[in-house]
Amino acid sequence: MSKQLAISGFPEWLPEQRIIENTILNQIRNKFELFGFLPMETRAVEPLSQLLKQGETDKEIYVLRRLQTDDEEDEAEFGLHFDLTVPLARYVQQYRGQLNFPLKRYQIQKVWRGERPQEGRYREFYQADIDVIGADTLPLHFDAEMPWLLYEVLKDLPIPQVHILINNRKLLEGYYRGLGIEDIVGVLRIVDKLDKIGEEGTLSLLVEQAGLSPDTAKQCLAIGHIQSDDTSFVDQVKSLGVRHELLDEGLDELAFVMTSLEDLPKGAVKVDLHIARGLDYYTGMVYEGFLQGHESLGAVCSGGRYDDLASSSGKNKMPGVGVSIGITRILGYLFSKGLLQASRKTPTCVLVALPSEEKRSLTRDSARQLRERGICCETYHLPQKYGKQIRYAERLGIPYVWFPETEEGNQQVRDIRLGEQSTADPASWMPPKEDLNVQIEYNDEVE
Amino acid sequence: MSKQLAISGFPEWLPEQRIIENTILNQIRNKFELFGFLPMETRAVEPLSQLLKQGETDKEIYVLRRLQTDDEEDEAEFGLHFDLTVPLARYVQQYRGQLNFPLKRYQIQKVWRGERPQEGRYREFYQADIDVIGADTLPLHFDAEMPWLLYEVLKDLPIPQVHILINNRKLLEGYYRGLGIEDIVGVLRIVDKLDKIGEEGTLSLLVEQAGLSPDTAKQCLAIGHIQSDDTSFVDQVKSLGVRHELLDEGLDELAFVMTSLEDLPKGAVKVDLHIARGLDYYTGMVYEGFLQGHESLGAVCSGGRYDDLASSSGKNKMPGVGVSIGITRILGYLFSKGLLQASRKTPTCVLVALPSEEKRSLTRDSARQLRERGICCETYHLPQKYGKQIRYAERLGIPYVWFPETEEGNQQVRDIRLGEQSTADPASWMPPKEDLNVQIEYNDEVE
Repeated sequence: MSKQLAISGFPEWLPEQRIIENTILNQIRNKFELFGFLPMETRAVEPLSQLLKQGETDKEIYVLRRLQTDDEEDEAEFGLHFDLTVPLARYVQQYRGQLNFPLKRYQIQKVWRGERPQEGRYREFYQADIDVIGADTLPLHFDAEMPWLLYEVLKDLPIPQVHILINNRKLLEGYYRGLGIEDIVGVLRIVDKLDKIGEEGTLSLLVEQAGLSPDTAKQCLAIGHIQSDDTSFVDQVKSLGVRHELLDEGLDELAFVMTSLEDLPKGAVKVDLHIARGLDYYTGMVYEGFLQGHESLGAVCSGGRYDDLASSSGKNKMPGVGVSIGITRILGYLFSKGLLQASRKTPTCVLVALPSEEKRSLTRDSARQLRERGICCETYHLPQKYGKQIRYAERLGIPYVWFPETEEGNQQVRDIRLGEQSTADPASWMPPKEDLNVQIEYNDEVE
Repeated sequence: MSKQLAISGFPEWLPEQRIIENTILNQIRNKFELFGFLPMETRAVEPLSQLLKQGETDKEIYVLRRLQTDDEEDEAEFGLHFDLTVPLARYVQQYRGQLNFPLKRYQIQKVWRGERPQEGRYREFYQADIDVIGADTLPLHFDAEMPWLLYEVLKDLPIPQVHILINNRKLLEGYYRGLGIEDIVGVLRIVDKLDKIGEEGTLSLLVEQAGLSPDTAKQCLAIGHIQSDDTSFVDQVKSLGVRHELLDEGLDELAFVMTSLEDLPKGAVKVDLHIARGLDYYTGMVYEGFLQGHESLGAVCSGGRYDDLASSSGKNKMPGVGVSIGITRILGYLFSKGLLQASRKTPTCVLVALPSEEKRSLTRDSARQLRERGICCETYHLPQKYGKQIRYAERLGIPYVWFPETEEGNQQVRDIRLGEQSTADPASWMPPKEDLNVQIEYNDEVE
């Protein structure tokens, strides 16, 4: 039954996993707002023309049609958005007059891609994005703010540490141009396969497909070996002996960003010149983040600077820079490895027992008093034996059962984990702080 | 430009409206959890066969296809869900062994219907649902809990008061059967049009389409005039002189629910026997809620008991009862009337000014200290004249601008609404509570 109803690539969680997802989404949302980003949400659909605008997209698009269409209507074709950046670009064009720039916005929504499902790759998944869009210009400071914000947001989540790698497209393009290469996109696309097909394979593709000399091909890859957690990459690149104006510009930008991030712990953000974000629309800085110790999962966050995406016709430049966190990729992976645990399967902290049908209003009243102090509680639905009511609480991991009427003529609360029961007043009793809300724990000792 | 990019029926909000929506969704979520409901989220798509299962659906479905399909694959057709109840029914079948019953879950998601857009009717909209699903049986207490929960959730939202009307399908069906009518669904469907086409029109349809005698048709409508805010409806129905076993069952259920709701303020929930929820899958209690003074908008929440929806093959009965709040219908209406206001256009409470490029780390440090106490703040991005920085804050309605360096050698904060500026310590300063987070105000004096 279960298999028959599942749809490959469309993950669903059990309620206790959804509690974890909700908690993490809330933490991210709060952090984004703490840094002054505006909430935004776009419709799930865009005109197909908008989705295909970038031309180079490798994203498989889901197209919509109405089951019962009226012949009279001549409707444009719509598709589900495959990211949150293309919709943002359209949104800022559409509402430009009502928005304030630089526009800092966050957006947490599901996106859809008709790709072949595999580990870490879904057809429906959550992304959490932040972007800053400027009117006409956008200072480079925002390019430095992005990896810094990623660090700030991710460091407090119950997930493995994320290390962030950064690079600059101008640097790469300038370097390639300095080598005399003209088909930059073609070469970038091949170099982007390095992690999948290895150095040998990449070299032969560069020679066979891109028509480079074996020497030039080797030089192409040489830059990708450069890494640093400070600005020492500048000298390393210069020592390769390639010169180009755009290369210098890229080096300057990347050095500026690294300098701006000096206050972060050493190694939180590293320069890695093999990061390119191949087919995407980036024009300057690019970012990728990986879970420490789980790099095989691939990037769990990524982004970059795009100078042209949100520009309507060329005269109204709207450059942007942003990053996207792959929530479902992270959670799907951690869930599958059993690394994330919730302290219970329900928000409920207290189950208020029902002594008898006649006492239903007493039960309800105790629950009401507890809720007034923000204690999540539910009332048991039938006057069954207390043993049965307690077992319901146990199955859900509810820590406390409340008895609104006892033989002693008072109200009592029982910690069912310890089996300890004591007199309590529904108007004042509070559980320990760690029991009030569901606790989420990342536990890497499971592996 | 703006018109060209909009898609009819797919509403989008400005960031300041999204702040309001987020706040309201959070309030609803917190209230649902306070009552012990589990969070759940289902994929956006269901197999078309699942969506059409109910047969009688009048919902227009959006079907998906991949733009680039592999010929090899023989994929089933999928559609976007048009409500959250059909997916819930499928979910509890699929995950039955991992769930605990009675299952109390809430679900807040977008749904899609390809209907012709008009006021209050969208093609993409948010619903906030709660349901309880039982294994084999589900006590009637939950049927009483639903309107009570609706009342509890809605009363604290910044929206007009919602009055909830309730009825019972068994009561209606029993009454019709007592009148000798056999095509219950056909008659229900016609009676459901009463509000749209009036009494005359309904009567003639009952005679012409359903083949009733004019007398029986009148009796059909007679029951629809009965309303009460207590159990007096029982005598009113009995005085109509119709007798049927199912009618008695419905009267008993409805009377039980009304008695259970005695603690609510008089009139919060009323019996109204013309509520039927025509084409839906309900088998017992039905509910509808309307915004007081804005009834023309139609129902803003609705629901009922369904004994068969979640049952897989007949042997595993999984009766349910639930209600759904039409978030987008409510907000779209209140936004269009200008009745909801946010106190500012951003979460930001404090803009930390940038005195000069050299002082960027000072600016950042003051912001960091403010954020440590949960104060949302952003740093200004360029060392422009203070007047320009203050105007940025004004445009977004940010109440405070922070100066990390002044001629007096200290830090100062300025309430830009009052123009008052004073010395302040970023390590301890707090804004008044009402300025800390965005305040949402429902203002019906605008009309």
